[in-house]
Amino acid sequence: MIEPKTLPGFMELLPEDQILFNKVVNIIKKNFESYGFLPIDTPVLENSEVLLAKAGGETEKQIYSFTKGDNKICMRFDLTVPLAKYVAANFDSLNFPFARYQIGKVYRGEKPQKGRFREFYQCDIDVIGKNSLSLYYDAEIPSIMYRIFKELNIGKFTIFVSNRKILLGLIENLGLKDSVDILRLIDKFAKIGEENFVLTLKLDYKIEDDIINKLLQFIKIDGTTNQQLEKLKKFKIDNSDFNEGVEELEHVIKNMRAFGVEEDYFNINLSIARGLDYYTGTVYETFITGHENLGSVCSGGRFDNLAEYYTKEKLPGVGMSIGLTRLFYQLKENNLLKQEKGAIAKVVILPMGNTIDECIALSNQLRNNNINNIVYFEETKFKNKILYATKANANYAVIIGEDEVKNNYFTLKDLNAFEQKQVTFEEMLNILR
Amino acid sequence: MIEPKTLPGFMELLPEDQILFNKVVNIIKKNFESYGFLPIDTPVLENSEVLLAKAGGETEKQIYSFTKGDNKICMRFDLTVPLAKYVAANFDSLNFPFARYQIGKVYRGEKPQKGRFREFYQCDIDVIGKNSLSLYYDAEIPSIMYRIFKELNIGKFTIFVSNRKILLGLIENLGLKDSVDILRLIDKFAKIGEENFVLTLKLDYKIEDDIINKLLQFIKIDGTTNQQLEKLKKFKIDNSDFNEGVEELEHVIKNMRAFGVEEDYFNINLSIARGLDYYTGTVYETFITGHENLGSVCSGGRFDNLAEYYTKEKLPGVGMSIGLTRLFYQLKENNLLKQEKGAIAKVVILPMGNTIDECIALSNQLRNNNINNIVYFEETKFKNKILYATKANANYAVIIGEDEVKNNYFTLKDLNAFEQKQVTFEEMLNILR
Repeated sequence: MIEPKTLPGFMELLPEDQILFNKVVNIIKKNFESYGFLPIDTPVLENSEVLLAKAGGETEKQIYSFTKGDNKICMRFDLTVPLAKYVAANFDSLNFPFARYQIGKVYRGEKPQKGRFREFYQCDIDVIGKNSLSLYYDAEIPSIMYRIFKELNIGKFTIFVSNRKILLGLIENLGLKDSVDILRLIDKFAKIGEENFVLTLKLDYKIEDDIINKLLQFIKIDGTTNQQLEKLKKFKIDNSDFNEGVEELEHVIKNMRAFGVEEDYFNINLSIARGLDYYTGTVYETFITGHENLGSVCSGGRFDNLAEYYTKEKLPGVGMSIGLTRLFYQLKENNLLKQEKGAIAKVVILPMGNTIDECIALSNQLRNNNINNIVYFEETKFKNKILYATKANANYAVIIGEDEVKNNYFTLKDLNAFEQKQVTFEEMLNILR
Repeated sequence: MIEPKTLPGFMELLPEDQILFNKVVNIIKKNFESYGFLPIDTPVLENSEVLLAKAGGETEKQIYSFTKGDNKICMRFDLTVPLAKYVAANFDSLNFPFARYQIGKVYRGEKPQKGRFREFYQCDIDVIGKNSLSLYYDAEIPSIMYRIFKELNIGKFTIFVSNRKILLGLIENLGLKDSVDILRLIDKFAKIGEENFVLTLKLDYKIEDDIINKLLQFIKIDGTTNQQLEKLKKFKIDNSDFNEGVEELEHVIKNMRAFGVEEDYFNINLSIARGLDYYTGTVYETFITGHENLGSVCSGGRFDNLAEYYTKEKLPGVGMSIGLTRLFYQLKENNLLKQEKGAIAKVVILPMGNTIDECIALSNQLRNNNINNIVYFEETKFKNKILYATKANANYAVIIGEDEVKNNYFTLKDLNAFEQKQVTFEEMLNILR
């Protein structure tokens, strides 16, 4: 006998939770499609040469790779590299700007720990331009994610927006040398706190007080988005990147409003740096209010060139991604999913006595009226049949006994209210609808 | 520069085809759920020990396997072994009879050839009983597949049904020794033809003429399902398996009718043997009429014990499976998919001049009315904008120029009929709905 165990770090849900998970996926998909994003479905396996064109460091160590015949093969570790391959390979067939979504499993052999998964769903949207891409997409993308999180009904959240050009321009303007280190430090500002931030700059990087004060003043710009933008403009930094960044950020903020993102649900956070070598303009992070410790649940940004390793075509883009497996786990753990108990069938039909023919006939009729239902066929005690219907999270059981058949009615049992009544088919249909 | 190539034997569709593929998946899923089947989603990777508990021979050679840390890992090659693991592992939490569906990718390192894939979707339904399972499920399962293929609208097809007990009983009754070889030969009867069938039995297996005639008479039983059942009964074989098989088959046929399967869409085919050591009762194969050369597009059957390698619990079941990637490829190749061109957005909104604000406002309004739409933001010639909308397979383009804004109307362009008119928002909504 072999123990039927699942590998550690792999999520496998019971049906009730799987139904909830699928509901979340459907909400995400529906909203992606409401903006006309096109689905693609790239393979889980790719040629190592293709998948590792850019990878390196930590990511490469985590990748599942193996050899089959003459092929060196990898399992995808994100959906961005496969997108780059896809766009380069199908360049002449795609309609640009190419707005695509992909929801699929990716693989990273991380150390398994609570809330971390080795196989997890990513839900990505990106718009890819040919040579150039309008800044309006930088506002459209977070508005899609806004709609999704609103519909998921998980409470208050904030989409934080910034533009990397602002930080880079500031650092350049201040003449700071260790710019990558300092960017990383700024990104961690909230985590390490002001005191450690100042001490590190002073002791490790020998930065003068007036420059540290300028950095602090910058990071701590607060108020409404409009107030923050005004303060940024008054900062009067003579640097073209900085000023371009502020202008772009203002455009994005203005149009996020136009796309219907409520004022309370987004904000500027100038310390967001994200992937230090990938994003080149707008950047996003999303936090659930009161659950900031979960980290960003939806992030992304603008990049200059998607597929430089595969094509000479210049392909700028902007996108965001939800790490769904982890998010779902966190939402469940924190009781943030307020959906009803997962159920597929609204009603279970229970034969009592020799009435299976009538049960099948009713099942067909209900199905033809788009009501998912189950007929319980096993011969067992009535108690067990009702237990089955209850465990299936059905709202109703229909009982068909010989009396029901003879007198042409159905007994409809409300499994939540513990009451039952005799109904005609039409009455049942009205209740079940 | 690295060539952005996809591995051979891996299907990767352009968005238009992906939309069609997803439509097929949705039809399958909807019908599975209409019978109350529960979704599960097992990992793509499993412990080798677990996944290979039963495998061997050809299958084992095709499996993608590798080592990561101390773990020997395999990619799943079907959805049945993971189901067995799942049911054994979650036995106490499941509601029996456990009716589940799973739609997911599986992996087999077969020699790549036209129409054969190394990564492919399987769409499985199975009902698993605890100790026993009603025979009604053997009729329910093919009725689900019938509804799916009807809704896919691919023309005429036939679900062939048999019961392995009949063949096994007959062979036992005739006292044939090489029963496995002979079963295999019978399974190939249609392919090899009567003459070769007779010669092989005569020369290779030294079987006497009267027994060969009996086998021929049996295989060639024809007519309506009722006539076939009558002929089977008149066959008067004194073997309990044979007679039990005939009785079960009669029950299944009767109830497939009850579940609404049209007479023209199913038939008895006594030569179906299928997986020689797995199925123990009812067996199914499905052929598209006029395209029998494609092989069975949906198969399955009844089995005695799902998870004998993982648990002492006796878990009989019945199920069917669609190999969707291959089927989709075949349907496309043979022009059997009659769906409209794949499109996500019904309408593309085109700004002319400085009207982007109005375009975004309209986009929001349409989206709130559940109409998927795209705003085209790039600055380019009108010709290119219309070309984009056409390539997106949208039915309509809405043009908003400065005149439209000033006079409060929209220009709605029918992209199929090449005509346009001026409409109010309400009029547009009515047309788009």
